[in-house]
Amino acid sequence: MTRLPRSKQILRADIAMRHSDEKWMAEAIKVGRQARVWSAPNPAVGCVIVRDDALLAAGFTHPTGQQHAEIHALSQIDDAVGATAYVTLEPCSHTGHTGPCVDALIGAGIVRVVLSCVDPDPRVAGKGVAKLESAGIDVTTGVLEAQAHDELKGFFLRLSRGWGRVTVKMAISADGRSAMASGESQWITGAAARADVQAWRAESDVILTGSGTVMADDCALTLRQCENRLSEADWQRALAKPTARAVVDSSATITHDAKVVSGDTPTFLFVRSDAQASTDMPSSVSYIPLDAQEKGVDLKAVFKLLGDKGANEILVEAGPTLVGALQQADLIDRWLIYMAPTMLGADARPAHAAVFKKLSDAPRYSVTGHELIGDDLRIIMRAAQDS
Amino acid sequence: MTRLPRSKQILRADIAMRHSDEKWMAEAIKVGRQARVWSAPNPAVGCVIVRDDALLAAGFTHPTGQQHAEIHALSQIDDAVGATAYVTLEPCSHTGHTGPCVDALIGAGIVRVVLSCVDPDPRVAGKGVAKLESAGIDVTTGVLEAQAHDELKGFFLRLSRGWGRVTVKMAISADGRSAMASGESQWITGAAARADVQAWRAESDVILTGSGTVMADDCALTLRQCENRLSEADWQRALAKPTARAVVDSSATITHDAKVVSGDTPTFLFVRSDAQASTDMPSSVSYIPLDAQEKGVDLKAVFKLLGDKGANEILVEAGPTLVGALQQADLIDRWLIYMAPTMLGADARPAHAAVFKKLSDAPRYSVTGHELIGDDLRIIMRAAQDS
Ligand SMILES: NC(=O)c1ccc[n+]([C@@H]2O[C@H](COP(=O)([O-])OP(=O)(O)OC[C@H]3O[C@@H](n4cnc5c(N)ncnc54)[C@H](OP(=O)(O)O)[C@@H]3O)[C@@H](O)[C@H]2O)c1
Ligand SMILES: NC(=O)c1ccc[n+]([C@@H]2O[C@H](COP(=O)([O-])OP(=O)(O)OC[C@H]3O[C@@H](n4cnc5c(N)ncnc54)[C@H](OP(=O)(O)O)[C@@H]3O)[C@@H](O)[C@H]2O)c1
Repeated sequence: MTRLPRSKQILRADIAMRHSDEKWMAEAIKVGRQARVWSAPNPAVGCVIVRDDALLAAGFTHPTGQQHAEIHALSQIDDAVGATAYVTLEPCSHTGHTGPCVDALIGAGIVRVVLSCVDPDPRVAGKGVAKLESAGIDVTTGVLEAQAHDELKGFFLRLSRGWGRVTVKMAISADGRSAMASGESQWITGAAARADVQAWRAESDVILTGSGTVMADDCALTLRQCENRLSEADWQRALAKPTARAVVDSSATITHDAKVVSGDTPTFLFVRSDAQASTDMPSSVSYIPLDAQEKGVDLKAVFKLLGDKGANEILVEAGPTLVGALQQADLIDRWLIYMAPTMLGADARPAHAAVFKKLSDAPRYSVTGHELIGDDLRIIMRAAQDS
Repeated sequence: MTRLPRSKQILRADIAMRHSDEKWMAEAIKVGRQARVWSAPNPAVGCVIVRDDALLAAGFTHPTGQQHAEIHALSQIDDAVGATAYVTLEPCSHTGHTGPCVDALIGAGIVRVVLSCVDPDPRVAGKGVAKLESAGIDVTTGVLEAQAHDELKGFFLRLSRGWGRVTVKMAISADGRSAMASGESQWITGAAARADVQAWRAESDVILTGSGTVMADDCALTLRQCENRLSEADWQRALAKPTARAVVDSSATITHDAKVVSGDTPTFLFVRSDAQASTDMPSSVSYIPLDAQEKGVDLKAVFKLLGDKGANEILVEAGPTLVGALQQADLIDRWLIYMAPTMLGADARPAHAAVFKKLSDAPRYSVTGHELIGDDLRIIMRAAQDS
């Protein structure tokens, strides 16, 4: 065997290390997804502890006041001495509900920490890394950063702008229609697509709709466990902390017998401050008054208030009016489109009510996913400036 | 090593043979695709000659009067004795423009012929197989039949119903719109999608549009060589036998200076029999008079006349009026949709003009392909009953 010059040997070792770092970070990202259903307001972080390229333990964020991902992982093993921890977000150095994760990593004898994103939370931001390094731990940052950043996007957006990621679900035909002219729309998409929506609901922190949809469909907007990409364990976690519901209902028209206010799941009703709230609502319902504006309530204010309540991921499931208003105000971060392979016709109801004068005014997105779900095509698009 | 009982040994040999048959038939299908750009009215057949699991030669259909796929393959080798021929369609046994392919296979010493589809052409239908078998050749049929059948669909449809496969191309936004309310539509989709359309044009036998599109865009509907899935050799073949053009133009409004009648490419203008045809059209233009009907010309008659001219694959590139009429008459076999990741708005022009009363009247398709072409999503759907 010919010997490589030393510089090339180092290069090879570097490449091998990077490959292995990416492999384990991908695993940490995957593990972190299990936290989506219950971590808010905290980010859904994943952590894997690895020694000699073998997995020792995996952890993910637990609900507020419970274990962070690193603690969850460490709690599963007696001995982490000399191991490497892969974490999708910088470990916290402050004492919140739980003790600082950096102390736990140091205490466990971890010798190397690999991170994807540095925490934008001003209480952490670089301090976690600094504390680890001053304890002699080798820290690598930025591994699969773009991917992890996308996973934690809702959390990052909420910290930076005050409200989380806004994902708009829309079930339409191939000719872009949401219902027949008569309003008939059950069901455009198939059972598999509807089951898939349940996974998105479970992984969101609040489902927002408009009074129009509540009036037309008397929808419950609750989680319904069914066969989809979530595991049985995901479902158990999801149902332990059900996704909240919210309705923009300027005139407070929703009554106590509407399905959307039934059950224990918290429901927020956004109403005009001068609207007459109903007095016989269940205790799980909160009215949130907002200043009146020309049409309905101020949607940015709605999102900010949901942000204050800790919602990182906001799933909108509304009709053309509210979806159109969000589109017109350029408030949509991501589209979750289920396109049914049918044509509803030129007189059928539009996908949304927004209008644009010129082609150059039309909003541009980029397709980040397309997949058949049963007979329907699921298309994921995100704001083009957001790539 | 434990010996398998004899029945299991045979089973294993069978499975191995089937695997190898499918592998080579897949190759024959791939090779046959090269013929798409010029084989009409003949089907785009592929043939590979194999001995000891090694490829000896590959052939595909040449234009009318020239080599069939089998002859093209055999012409490339001196010795095919003892070899197996994989052909996507039953070899012909009649003498048309060329001598019968079965005789050539027998004469070359081929010992086994593997077919996917049996030819529905009444002049062949089973006769090819019979002749091969009576010459002592081992014949296997039905290998990858569904796949080969789909490749040759236009040809089969034309033989059985009088007209070829109708594929409708449509460039729309994610909210199903073909143009802004003002008519502005250049360009909704990107350069890559437009280059992809050129491959579909080249592989079709005629491009059909409506007078509305000719008026609005003065389109040429010619082949424009560009970077797409076609190879340089495919393009040379395509340009050697350019795709014909056709316009439904009831009132014969198209004039000699329209781009769609320029150049040498044959152009068919379908007009009402009482319309005043222009007298100064180039010789490449043919007027085809049709009986008047309430709106425009009879579209099924148009397709049949194109079928008589040997068009297996008809590509429609028209506006909402003609596409809507085709949809309303349920004449669409396949959709070729380029969905641009944008929203054009609720007042923008519809994808097509067809309307339906009830959801149960809405036509159903099935998605058979979805792929990003540049920034746009290409969605292929076919009639649901057609699966
Ligand atoms: N295809 C799908 O994916 C899908 C999803 C959900 C619903 N739908 C269908 O959509 C139909 C209902 O659609 P819709 O358009 O009538 O109802 P919608 O969009 O769900 O709700 C619209 C209502 O929200 C309220 N609102 C408050 N603030 C608003 C603001 N700033 N901008 C816009 N709206 C605001 C308004 O009522 P107030 O003035 O009372 O506040 C408005 O009329 C139903 O038939 C349902 O089945 C389809
Ligand atoms: N987005 C896309 O993929 C795409 C593709 C092509 C065109 N376009 C756009 O579409 C627009 C033109 O659309 P359009 O709807 O006005 O034109 P069109 O659909 O291309 O042509 C319609 C015309 O075809 C003739 N016709 C004859 N027989 C017919 C029949 N049985 N049914 C229907 N039509 C029949 C009619 O005119 P006569 O009465 O004169 O015969 C009719 O007005 C242009 O702006 C163009 O850019 C878009």
